[in-house]
Amino acid sequence: MSGAAGRVLAISGGIGGAKLALGLYRTLAPDALTVVCNTGDDFTHLGLYVSPDVDTVLYTLAGLANREQGWGRAHETWTFMDALERLGGETWFRLGDGDLALHVERTRRLAAGETPGAIIDDIRRRLGVTARIVPMSDHRVRTLVHTPDSVLAFQEYFVKLRCEPAVQHFEFAGADAARLAPGVLAALADDALQAVVICPSNPFISIDPLLALPGVREALNACRAPVVAVSPVIGGQAVKGPTAKMMRELGLPVSAAGVAAHYRGLLDGFVLDDADAALAATLDVPCLVTRTLMRTNADKQALAREVLAFARALSG
Amino acid sequence: MSGAAGRVLAISGGIGGAKLALGLYRTLAPDALTVVCNTGDDFTHLGLYVSPDVDTVLYTLAGLANREQGWGRAHETWTFMDALERLGGETWFRLGDGDLALHVERTRRLAAGETPGAIIDDIRRRLGVTARIVPMSDHRVRTLVHTPDSVLAFQEYFVKLRCEPAVQHFEFAGADAARLAPGVLAALADDALQAVVICPSNPFISIDPLLALPGVREALNACRAPVVAVSPVIGGQAVKGPTAKMMRELGLPVSAAGVAAHYRGLLDGFVLDDADAALAATLDVPCLVTRTLMRTNADKQALAREVLAFARALSG
Repeated sequence: MSGAAGRVLAISGGIGGAKLALGLYRTLAPDALTVVCNTGDDFTHLGLYVSPDVDTVLYTLAGLANREQGWGRAHETWTFMDALERLGGETWFRLGDGDLALHVERTRRLAAGETPGAIIDDIRRRLGVTARIVPMSDHRVRTLVHTPDSVLAFQEYFVKLRCEPAVQHFEFAGADAARLAPGVLAALADDALQAVVICPSNPFISIDPLLALPGVREALNACRAPVVAVSPVIGGQAVKGPTAKMMRELGLPVSAAGVAAHYRGLLDGFVLDDADAALAATLDVPCLVTRTLMRTNADKQALAREVLAFARALSG
Repeated sequence: MSGAAGRVLAISGGIGGAKLALGLYRTLAPDALTVVCNTGDDFTHLGLYVSPDVDTVLYTLAGLANREQGWGRAHETWTFMDALERLGGETWFRLGDGDLALHVERTRRLAAGETPGAIIDDIRRRLGVTARIVPMSDHRVRTLVHTPDSVLAFQEYFVKLRCEPAVQHFEFAGADAARLAPGVLAALADDALQAVVICPSNPFISIDPLLALPGVREALNACRAPVVAVSPVIGGQAVKGPTAKMMRELGLPVSAAGVAAHYRGLLDGFVLDDADAALAATLDVPCLVTRTLMRTNADKQALAREVLAFARALSG
């Protein structure tokens, strides 16, 4: 068998997940990768439908991402936001001028009756991306943040309030009635599938929304290819974002072991950083200990190669 | 009586009309001017509600207009259009990044139930404009262009086809059922009204849509203040745009006299350029012959002062 020729399904949120998705994209055959993206963060802002994780993956694979900022596009301009501020519009969620094109075009096409999946599939092709990018569902699933005082819409919690309120639990409104995006179940059942990679994204807000969709856990368990997760927590800290803070608030151990525990029953393998090597022996799942911090594109590809080799070993 | 202290109602389309509106704005007391703008050109593009003539007047009075281009904003960037092109979106109608803020914000506020008039009144205040800017109606009126081959939506004719098809006549769909914007009838009946100025805009596509609204002609006839029009045609040519071409196609004399004839029964005075002095004697309406070409702001204010003095003389 040729592992490199097999297909890979990656499950990703935004920044951290997109980094490994890029590593996989550059490592695999051009059409071998499918990235299923969280849409629980999607929201309508200024009348425009915004899908942050899908867009981060799109921009990252298309080579358009702003790597310093971690979101949005490189070589961006901000004339729209400046003008909007003068008009008294809402400016707490920053939309760059080029980024806006995607939101306007997606909103227009949604209103014309196209599905989120069909729209992004057309757009990624236009941008020359040969990997498939799949919003987890064409149905609306909204991540809600339950805090001691209120229930917050995700972007209000995440951007407007900068994750300051303590989290009690997350709710994925609409998940029960939503269906997984077309083709994903088939991809999971595909004999050519080499690995399912849960990218180093926030487990609670980037991966759990997908896992909350009906049939997903069952399909992952039934999948013949190994399911491998990469820890977004290194040395007890999140590489970026509020993962560690959330784990504390949710009463979980703030460590890669806490991440592994969260995914219990789902994984065939777990990847954690050299810094957490001592934890590997404590886990009841096969582990790969390696450098998981991705700064350069070479880092991303190196980690992707290691994860794929690990998956091959698990299925061997 | 103090003419300068009286109120002035200007009726305007886009570029040419906005120039005289600016002259009037700078000449009159800060709150003395109301500009009623054509909305027959309004259309929904990329899912956004665009109101070109209202916006040109707004940007002009706010000092934000791109004077070289004649539309849009100065210091504009075009990142949105460039990005949209790569996504396969429609790019025939150019929307600058800063301009886009107005369209997005207006569209959002319309969807939230505000009227076009209330939205622009709030926005012009935020931009420091002390003149009132009034979309001619809060109801939708759509200028349609009848050609030998088809009936075209206005912007398709005007921008996409660059006014190339020959015009047979214009239709103002929805005008019969539309109502003039709130406050305009009261402004016309106001004893403090000093003049109604029909700006040098295209009579057929910028002024006629307003005249097609129920009760407008009657209100102009009943108005105690003089109604004065400034010719957009000088020496048989339009200063800008397709006015002359339309007059030819409509079988009208391509001259200031043709414009006066088009407004017959409506005017108390007519303003035409020095170049057309010979025509004045042939018209059955009192005329002011002066320099009507406006290149500089000084030109705009000079013409405004002359038009106001002319109106005072007519009512004296």
